Amino acid sequence: MSHVLTLNAGSSTLKFGLFTAAQDPNPLCTGLIDHIGGAATLSLKDSQDKTLSRGDLAQGSAENHDGALQVALAEIGTQFPEAIITAVGHRVVHGGVDFCDPINVTGKVLEDLDKLVALAPLHQPHNLAGIRSSISAFPQAKQIACFDTAFHRQHPFVNDTYALPREYYDKGVRRYGFHGLSYDYISGKLAEIAPVLHAGRVVVAHLGNGASMCALVKGQSIASTMGFSSLDGIAMGTRTGQLDPGVMLYLMDHEAMTHDEISDLLYKQSGLLGMSGVSNDMRELLASENPQAYEAIDYFCCRIQRELGSLAAAIGGLDALVFTGGIGENAAKIRERVCAGMEWIGIEFDNARNTAGVEVVSTSASRVQVMVVPTNEELVIARAASAAVAG
Amino acid sequence: MSHVLTLNAGSSTLKFGLFTAAQDPNPLCTGLIDHIGGAATLSLKDSQDKTLSRGDLAQGSAENHDGALQVALAEIGTQFPEAIITAVGHRVVHGGVDFCDPINVTGKVLEDLDKLVALAPLHQPHNLAGIRSSISAFPQAKQIACFDTAFHRQHPFVNDTYALPREYYDKGVRRYGFHGLSYDYISGKLAEIAPVLHAGRVVVAHLGNGASMCALVKGQSIASTMGFSSLDGIAMGTRTGQLDPGVMLYLMDHEAMTHDEISDLLYKQSGLLGMSGVSNDMRELLASENPQAYEAIDYFCCRIQRELGSLAAAIGGLDALVFTGGIGENAAKIRERVCAGMEWIGIEFDNARNTAGVEVVSTSASRVQVMVVPTNEELVIARAASAAVAG
Repeated sequence: MSHVLTLNAGSSTLKFGLFTAAQDPNPLCTGLIDHIGGAATLSLKDSQDKTLSRGDLAQGSAENHDGALQVALAEIGTQFPEAIITAVGHRVVHGGVDFCDPINVTGKVLEDLDKLVALAPLHQPHNLAGIRSSISAFPQAKQIACFDTAFHRQHPFVNDTYALPREYYDKGVRRYGFHGLSYDYISGKLAEIAPVLHAGRVVVAHLGNGASMCALVKGQSIASTMGFSSLDGIAMGTRTGQLDPGVMLYLMDHEAMTHDEISDLLYKQSGLLGMSGVSNDMRELLASENPQAYEAIDYFCCRIQRELGSLAAAIGGLDALVFTGGIGENAAKIRERVCAGMEWIGIEFDNARNTAGVEVVSTSASRVQVMVVPTNEELVIARAASAAVAG
Repeated sequence: MSHVLTLNAGSSTLKFGLFTAAQDPNPLCTGLIDHIGGAATLSLKDSQDKTLSRGDLAQGSAENHDGALQVALAEIGTQFPEAIITAVGHRVVHGGVDFCDPINVTGKVLEDLDKLVALAPLHQPHNLAGIRSSISAFPQAKQIACFDTAFHRQHPFVNDTYALPREYYDKGVRRYGFHGLSYDYISGKLAEIAPVLHAGRVVVAHLGNGASMCALVKGQSIASTMGFSSLDGIAMGTRTGQLDPGVMLYLMDHEAMTHDEISDLLYKQSGLLGMSGVSNDMRELLASENPQAYEAIDYFCCRIQRELGSLAAAIGGLDALVFTGGIGENAAKIRERVCAGMEWIGIEFDNARNTAGVEVVSTSASRVQVMVVPTNEELVIARAASAAVAG
């Protein structure tokens, strides 16, 4: 039987998943190798979230992405000896202006993707390292790149540009938007479970350690809170979200900070962690009695409300709000706080439903339906990889 | 009879006004000296906007703010020989964290204001040069500084902070907001002409070559689109408005631009000018057939709609939208375009009223009342200066 592997390579992580190759792929397992290049660990779970194996790796066995992939494949081979991998689907953060769909990675495509490193210097190189490792490991398999930007490439010009001189737009300084695989999944799922809402105006809040929101009309992305980079929009675990460009000038001039120092500050020391001084983990913040933890949560929720109003304006109103991502799916308190005081936009929240773990968490009379829908980015990648094999 | 002078000193301009000193000051004239340090010009108009004098200045007569002020005073002396100036009110862009009200400028205050130059390096030095010139010219008069930030200093914490580590908030990296003198005027005017709306939730759009929006509840500022600097929020004549901090990192790294180059790009080459390649002047853009001029206008209006939704979220809905400033008061096309498709927020626009030059430009049935109210920042300054003399 033919199978597809999904790979999501980060700076020191490799997430992977094994699926049957099919129009509706069946998950067999998902795994994570963490701390690549250091004290690496492996965990593997089956489709019911049951741990199949977990533990520290021998020193030197996952020194880089090549090594990590070999470890992952060995483990898959042990657990699923019958698996024949015919295609590998890769999550790639940036597809630039041109890559609007999943693509079969050729040498030419890899060259083009290398050129996009400048647009996502913190993420793209790791994604491409994962692809190269995979080509070595599976020279016969199809390598399919799936882009986090692709779902947003049809934005109208006003939601794709900044008010810079036109030459910057022409050379690629655009509002790309990210988390596209997640929004793609949610859009497809909505078409299935709530076709009337899917045909209308929907805002999806993908709230995880990285977080963004996306405005959909008829299932298509019209605008997103993330733009050129994954920094913009709502606050995140360690990222600022929206920041006055004047603050950047101040940091450069008055604080004499370098590019790398500012990048580190904005990507790694800010957001919930920076505001609270406690943690970037929403669960810890919600459990904390530190007043700064409360303030960080409050800011996080208020900025989501602000962006919800802004995105509603981009699509002429709102029919549904969908929460997804680790925080969106699991933090009932955050959903409650975000929806509090949003009656003006048509939300009547039902906190009994919200805490009961059901799909619809607004009242039956609410003009705007509020939903919780778990995302599944790996499945979107597995579908694309399967389609490539079927084709 | 006692009079007050208002001064608004820019990089190469000095705007001034002469008023009777009174709780409700009566304007006698307003004037502008332009191109200070170059081929300087003077214009002076009476309170009916009738030109009293206009022309080029002798070379060397307005080489700096001291010279410009002497020219202004000589002209006032000629036109209004009876005027006895007992107080001078100054527009100062930045009052930092502490200056929440107009203040009598002492040596200590001037020192404190000097320290705020880092927060507004492009504007504050000129404002302070104007104060110093005025102290030389009127050693006996009271010098009253009125701050563009003061009206916003009571913002709730979520609308005053960024998601940076707390130490940056503590050292003054905050969402100050600007155009406070204009919003102060509009708030007072609304209390007079529409007290029910004033008591509710109002967004004011101050649209000029610089442009921002402010959300008011019961006449108090709750949030503003401008933040730490006057760059953020909606696009302006030559300024970007909202910009992903990731773009700044890209300009620093990939384009190897310096602080001064980026500052020049964001403050002077962007916005309507940068997008259109035609002009920073809305009148010229509206008259242009260049498709990029249309796109710049479209972006300008769409970002106002986005911010209107965002600000409505900050104040839990909307009762009134007020247009003011040069564009807001005069560009009916822009008001029409901003209100188009905003029925979802409760706006029913009445374009017949809009083009007729009346105060209320929404339908009688509109849940949100849309108004056009001319601003008068000088009057706010004159009131503060008068109060200082009366006190």
